[in-house]
Amino acid sequence: MDKNVLVPIANGTEEMEAVVVIDILRRAGLNVKVAGDNDIVTCSRGLKIIPDILIEKLEKDADFDAIILPGGAQGAQNLADNSHLATILEANINKGRLVGAICAAPIVLVHNGLINGMVRITSHPSIKPALQNFDYTEAEVIRDGNIITSRGAGTAIPFALELVSILVNQATANKIAGDIIYSRK
Amino acid sequence: MDKNVLVPIANGTEEMEAVVVIDILRRAGLNVKVAGDNDIVTCSRGLKIIPDILIEKLEKDADFDAIILPGGAQGAQNLADNSHLATILEANINKGRLVGAICAAPIVLVHNGLINGMVRITSHPSIKPALQNFDYTEAEVIRDGNIITSRGAGTAIPFALELVSILVNQATANKIAGDIIYSRK
Repeated sequence: MDKNVLVPIANGTEEMEAVVVIDILRRAGLNVKVAGDNDIVTCSRGLKIIPDILIEKLEKDADFDAIILPGGAQGAQNLADNSHLATILEANINKGRLVGAICAAPIVLVHNGLINGMVRITSHPSIKPALQNFDYTEAEVIRDGNIITSRGAGTAIPFALELVSILVNQATANKIAGDIIYSRK
Repeated sequence: MDKNVLVPIANGTEEMEAVVVIDILRRAGLNVKVAGDNDIVTCSRGLKIIPDILIEKLEKDADFDAIILPGGAQGAQNLADNSHLATILEANINKGRLVGAICAAPIVLVHNGLINGMVRITSHPSIKPALQNFDYTEAEVIRDGNIITSRGAGTAIPFALELVSILVNQATANKIAGDIIYSRK
């Protein structure tokens, strides 16, 4: 398994959403790189995480099998305002790579004009008004082509397991669900 | 709300279990102190967290309304082997404070002789053999007096919400569940 996944985090990132994705994707054997907007990232409820690399140190043409964006209102806004990240996202979207966004994170894509049209999408209810031009759904996790979205920290586990089923396989997702004693509804 | 909660973490701590508890208890307005066995704690899947304080810097007679122990096999072992933490745990248990343990963390209590008899308890299945002298259940979350236990990262949200319902109230737990888009099974 040599697939590479980028998880960008920023001050204000929702720590559960970031950590559930990072942990479950690493359990699946994926090579997850955590890139931060600071050497020490202070998350939405004060947790301090040391990222693997600064976002600004990533090559502009860095190639990832997937880029997964955690939410948190301020964290998503900080990621949305990061033009270096936007460049990397755009290049990967143009190559058809998987891009995921949970909670408030779809605004990173909208703010930078990286998705448009009738993409089927979900988000935290608080940012639904910013997504009026999309085919909005209240599903916990929804995939439309290479865009996959989810709703909040409470849906982070099914979101991460769906990412594993896409990037690895369903059997691995099922094994991880069993290992962490997660029973699907 | 001036209730104080201690969440000890150590190298090898399961990061989802620690972060879900820290995040949800802080959302509830509880004063959560994250105490680490190192200045930088490297969790079970490589996440690096900076704790608020070193475990060894806590006063031996430090008083908490609750102490919540995250799992991860190596992390729980490291917490179990920390005699300074054991002293603090024993003093708080003797005062009738709430003590929670998820996944492998019940071994912290067993290893230090802090629970015994027919306490009703659960854990990650991998450490069930070490808990043969207890009244073992496979419930996601079980409370028996001031000891509350849970099974794994996949049960961390219901565990944390149950802690909120005990330490604050059920309405606050329900509000947080709604805010994070968590629907109970």
